[in-house]
Amino acid sequence: MPQETEAAVKPFLEVLSGRKQPSPPIWMMRQAGRYLPEYREVRAKAGGFLDLCFTPEFAAEVTLQPIRRFAFDAAIIFSDILVVPYALGRAVRFEVGEGPRLDPLDTPEKIATLEPRADLGKLEPVFEALRLVRRELDPKIALIGFCGAPWTVATYMVAGQGTPDQAPARLMAYRHPEAFAGIIDALVDNSIDYLLGQLAAGADVLQIFDTWAGVLPPREFLRWSVEPTSRIVEGVRAKVPDAKIIGFPRGAGALLPAYVDATGVNAVSIDWAAEPTMIREKVQKRVAVQGNLDPLVLIAGGAALDRAIDDVLASYAGGRLIFNLGHGIQPETPIAHVEQMIRRVRAYRG
Amino acid sequence: MPQETEAAVKPFLEVLSGRKQPSPPIWMMRQAGRYLPEYREVRAKAGGFLDLCFTPEFAAEVTLQPIRRFAFDAAIIFSDILVVPYALGRAVRFEVGEGPRLDPLDTPEKIATLEPRADLGKLEPVFEALRLVRRELDPKIALIGFCGAPWTVATYMVAGQGTPDQAPARLMAYRHPEAFAGIIDALVDNSIDYLLGQLAAGADVLQIFDTWAGVLPPREFLRWSVEPTSRIVEGVRAKVPDAKIIGFPRGAGALLPAYVDATGVNAVSIDWAAEPTMIREKVQKRVAVQGNLDPLVLIAGGAALDRAIDDVLASYAGGRLIFNLGHGIQPETPIAHVEQMIRRVRAYRG
Repeated sequence: MPQETEAAVKPFLEVLSGRKQPSPPIWMMRQAGRYLPEYREVRAKAGGFLDLCFTPEFAAEVTLQPIRRFAFDAAIIFSDILVVPYALGRAVRFEVGEGPRLDPLDTPEKIATLEPRADLGKLEPVFEALRLVRRELDPKIALIGFCGAPWTVATYMVAGQGTPDQAPARLMAYRHPEAFAGIIDALVDNSIDYLLGQLAAGADVLQIFDTWAGVLPPREFLRWSVEPTSRIVEGVRAKVPDAKIIGFPRGAGALLPAYVDATGVNAVSIDWAAEPTMIREKVQKRVAVQGNLDPLVLIAGGAALDRAIDDVLASYAGGRLIFNLGHGIQPETPIAHVEQMIRRVRAYRG
Repeated sequence: MPQETEAAVKPFLEVLSGRKQPSPPIWMMRQAGRYLPEYREVRAKAGGFLDLCFTPEFAAEVTLQPIRRFAFDAAIIFSDILVVPYALGRAVRFEVGEGPRLDPLDTPEKIATLEPRADLGKLEPVFEALRLVRRELDPKIALIGFCGAPWTVATYMVAGQGTPDQAPARLMAYRHPEAFAGIIDALVDNSIDYLLGQLAAGADVLQIFDTWAGVLPPREFLRWSVEPTSRIVEGVRAKVPDAKIIGFPRGAGALLPAYVDATGVNAVSIDWAAEPTMIREKVQKRVAVQGNLDPLVLIAGGAALDRAIDDVLASYAGGRLIFNLGHGIQPETPIAHVEQMIRRVRAYRG
């Protein structure tokens, strides 16, 4: 970032720009979350989950909490991947202990009623929260904006909720590919605008979460995960040519190199089941890798945690690595284990 | 199989023995199941799910039903992977629409109470069902016996039920690896005896189902999936040196070549998300491949089904292939779609 002074170099962005760091930058997916007592306090004040997302002061506050406590190398704006369907006029509810609920788009007729253009004004609170965070954030720390990948967001829009293997959307894509493509197209177009809005509001980096990429066979993976993500990356870079983007096609396995090639992302987040040799040879030589500690070993702690951290470092810290989990941190994770992890990663020099 | 006449050559066994067939043999995981009206009829007569498994006449009947209807190249004995915990004295119940329920072994103290030796007499009805099937089965058709891999069976024994990502067992393995190894060891020893019993009762081939292999990080995958499976293969072959064994570490992704090398299985079943180039180069050159149509495209039918069948054939029929699904057939699958699949696969010559 040429406009910045030396003091404001962000190690996180350095890695994304091709410069491996001796000690890998570190943050955690869902680092603003229920494992933190200070989060639970704000959450209780805010009321519902969407109220928390859409009240800029609250969203900014919980975004900054893990930075204050742990001095992570990146903050990720507190929000949810379902705010885009919300801006598309879909009813989105979060029921306690139940996960998200939407009115399912489970027929081609219902899909035909979907508005193609979102009302991005509804997402102005997210942009405002980004501006608030930006103002308070140490300039060495990167700020991450994000959206869900169209495939993953569409799985919730079709089923109306999370389901094992997201079968309803997969079945819809087989039976009615044109109708299903209508959802995907709406999500591509509006996700581009949403991500550009986040960059304008101060995000340094964007992450595209494709949590359900791994349930797709190769042909469907290319069509519904890779191709729409590529269009988003292209759409964002048409306006912001040097936009830094991290992809997270969870469960992509041996299809990950194809994803990296086609999408042009700067980094990929990898899940905890990734196979290191393939990742090093076919992924990390081209882009940075982010991950991939099993969130459950962070709950377990002790020697198992140390060993698992060392496995991640031994597997990936020889190249460009951003240390992270393989998925979001779980609410029951002890804070002391997060501290144990940070100490061990920060002590590493490679 | 030198003792057999030419008329009784089994195409399925030919593939496992290294001889690719011009038209791949075909069967389906869960082919004896609820999508068949004749199955639902027997199921209603039998009472509970375990009554169906443990009444030899009923189990043999539903095993043979899909063979009579579709002339598949293999019959798989109707049973369940949880009969081994049942023989170990664990309470196993199947609640309608809910899946299996066991009394959870969720502390090291509870695990310590596990009997190391199963009462294999409790599984005599399975052996008797195999003998009944063997007697009626066309000699060109292979008979498959099976068990669950220790890791997958242990995930149900620890949690007491299926859970997303089988987190309870993963956490137990991190926190109390010695206690968890106690469950695994009991399952290894008794699965060897159970599989040998199935071979003695007439099974031609054995399949080891590791449905939950894909949730393990590499180190844990090697320890809890590969290593125990290797011990089972070795234990079976110590008594039956030419035993044919198919492994199914679902979701193993790029770890599959390591599984093949270490376990010495004759074939692997692959899930529908497998990446074909890696499978062809690193798996199919060494062992036969079984799979991997998405069960959901079999529900969808039509042109999507034809295309998906052609993808499987184009990807794998150049080598040793047993055509199958990537997981079990779903209850709502139309029988006409199964017929469409069989016609298309049988028409193939490669």
